[in-house]
Amino acid sequence: MIDHTTLAKEVVKAIRSVVGTKSVGLHEPTFSGNEILYLKECIDSTFVSSVGKFVDRFEDELAQFTGAKYAVAVVNGTAALHIALKLAGVEAGDEVLTPALTFVATSNAVAYCNATPHFVDIEMRTLGVDAIKLRSYLNSHTEQRSGKCINLVTGKVIRALLPMHAFGHPVDLEGVLSIAKDFNIVLVEDAAESLGSYYHGKHTGTFGRMGTLSFNGNKTITTGGGGAILTNDAEIARYAKHLTTTAKIPHAWEFRHDEVGYNYRLPNLNAALGCAQIEHLNEKLTQKKALFNLYQTAFSKVEGIKLFKEPPRCSSNYWLQTLILDSPNIEIRDVILKVTNEAGFMTRPAWVLMDDLKPFKNCPKMDLTTATCVSRSLINIPSSSKLGST
Amino acid sequence: MIDHTTLAKEVVKAIRSVVGTKSVGLHEPTFSGNEILYLKECIDSTFVSSVGKFVDRFEDELAQFTGAKYAVAVVNGTAALHIALKLAGVEAGDEVLTPALTFVATSNAVAYCNATPHFVDIEMRTLGVDAIKLRSYLNSHTEQRSGKCINLVTGKVIRALLPMHAFGHPVDLEGVLSIAKDFNIVLVEDAAESLGSYYHGKHTGTFGRMGTLSFNGNKTITTGGGGAILTNDAEIARYAKHLTTTAKIPHAWEFRHDEVGYNYRLPNLNAALGCAQIEHLNEKLTQKKALFNLYQTAFSKVEGIKLFKEPPRCSSNYWLQTLILDSPNIEIRDVILKVTNEAGFMTRPAWVLMDDLKPFKNCPKMDLTTATCVSRSLINIPSSSKLGST
Repeated sequence: MIDHTTLAKEVVKAIRSVVGTKSVGLHEPTFSGNEILYLKECIDSTFVSSVGKFVDRFEDELAQFTGAKYAVAVVNGTAALHIALKLAGVEAGDEVLTPALTFVATSNAVAYCNATPHFVDIEMRTLGVDAIKLRSYLNSHTEQRSGKCINLVTGKVIRALLPMHAFGHPVDLEGVLSIAKDFNIVLVEDAAESLGSYYHGKHTGTFGRMGTLSFNGNKTITTGGGGAILTNDAEIARYAKHLTTTAKIPHAWEFRHDEVGYNYRLPNLNAALGCAQIEHLNEKLTQKKALFNLYQTAFSKVEGIKLFKEPPRCSSNYWLQTLILDSPNIEIRDVILKVTNEAGFMTRPAWVLMDDLKPFKNCPKMDLTTATCVSRSLINIPSSSKLGST
Repeated sequence: MIDHTTLAKEVVKAIRSVVGTKSVGLHEPTFSGNEILYLKECIDSTFVSSVGKFVDRFEDELAQFTGAKYAVAVVNGTAALHIALKLAGVEAGDEVLTPALTFVATSNAVAYCNATPHFVDIEMRTLGVDAIKLRSYLNSHTEQRSGKCINLVTGKVIRALLPMHAFGHPVDLEGVLSIAKDFNIVLVEDAAESLGSYYHGKHTGTFGRMGTLSFNGNKTITTGGGGAILTNDAEIARYAKHLTTTAKIPHAWEFRHDEVGYNYRLPNLNAALGCAQIEHLNEKLTQKKALFNLYQTAFSKVEGIKLFKEPPRCSSNYWLQTLILDSPNIEIRDVILKVTNEAGFMTRPAWVLMDDLKPFKNCPKMDLTTATCVSRSLINIPSSSKLGST
């Protein structure tokens, strides 16, 4: 067996052979288009806030790019998840199935609804929800009552299934869709990381009743902070816009709100940045795929660790390039993290599993063997699109 | 008695004499400084998101301007209120005293904490919480149990008092501070509208345990969307920053969160705009006071309606210039709203009272006579700072 430090040095060497000798971050944005021009246009128009042409245009372009009928832009991916879950009918006391391996926003959004995340294992092939294992678990742990999926242990309604396309790789969407149908659960896709990722030719985030996107600074395109809700349902789109704009009833001057609403609308200033960024999205996706190919060549010679490849019949945006140790080992993982970061190449492990976080320790969960293995063997390496430009 | 249409025409004439013949909005931002320069700097740095020098600088400048020891920048005023209430200890089932006359964000933020707003009347002198009436109400409707203020009718804890400085005019801060002290209630000031307003020489939002600001597009200065929490307490400031940045424990690479947190941090892009705007804040305040003086002369000749003037010993930012009918009358108010808006001068009434909104209809409330009168007699007229420039 190769020793830890030797492996870590091999990893540094492979990364360096692709990205060069300078320090690089994990995922840095590139602003090479009309960003300044549109920001200036936005300032000149004086419409910098919740109303403006860039918000409408950004929503149209997101719908066009993803193939969703509607896109509703919001302040960030967390807000998108919160509203999507509310519109999925998630109520206080409900449970929402969600992967143990995800960014904390997925679970937090469930908590904002006063509901409980119920953690699900992932599969190695996608790093997302394991639909086969989940179906078997639901068969033995739930029953249908009045068209609702009831958790036999807690007695609570399992209202929604919220898979997350980790690092941009599409989950088994056929699998989760059929679970949603068979168990009367609403499917909402957390596509925060997967803008530009396709499952069998169709864009992620457009399979469930809703999908959510993020345009945080570390995402494939950014609006500073931003997110969106995708849906094909006109009524859901209308309601999402209503809820994210304080639930105000349109009127020339009266301020009347018909329910507790949210101040979640994306400012026009941030949308202006988004409009410039989306013009280069396809170019960035090409660069990110090229970066994968470069890394693949470099890491093919490194023993003990493998570069993660998109699932079959999927086209991934390769948001974060991902290494997986052949054998899960936190000690080795942490040596590699230390040595690569010290060499100036920003790397990081998978998120701490949700069921290991203090606020979610007592939440229901199934066996999480694969998620646990992956959390001990996964390392994300520098993934900025510009690193793949020729 | 003067007839409705004649009064409305007099109002149009008075507004026109101040702002000219062109159409004007209620409150439009002005971008005459370093806005484009700082936005360009922000883009060039690539730090557009939750980390960056403009966020830190904007926070420092807000603290310096207001005299608060700490300012924590967030995505909007609603988010600031939500976190401030959480840090005030507001828990599910609690009640929060808040004016019936306010923008809905004040009440919504209480609802986000799964608490109930408890509506309080206002006084004509400030258009904000009537401290004398509130004290009398609390004397007869609450009792102290184990250092907590208990609503005798509902049995719930009244945890916080959240006055709002309406249209920029400071409430009776001595009055509400002494209530907070005497009844063991935490004072949080909703200063969303009152940046640049002072009570007895001290900035609003710095009297309570926390104060909140808004930089929405219609405010005195704007960041597109944005807000801030002001406090003099180092631990509250630290905790506010922690909660607004997903409650992540600092670590070189590990993602561990110690409670349910929020994605509420102001993006650096928006903070860059704020840094440019705050450089001209004093100038804008001078212009807004000049606009008040111009309106005062113009409206001194109009019978049946009066321009609202800052409370004694207060210096108001005159965020929205305000007319009050001598006798509350919705019919007259609506004729004036119609005629002025048709003439191209955007005007609007006070918000619908909170206890009249569907989501808050069943919330506890005291007698709301003054709020009701004001809601029937108040009209905001065009108030952009540029209208007061010479």
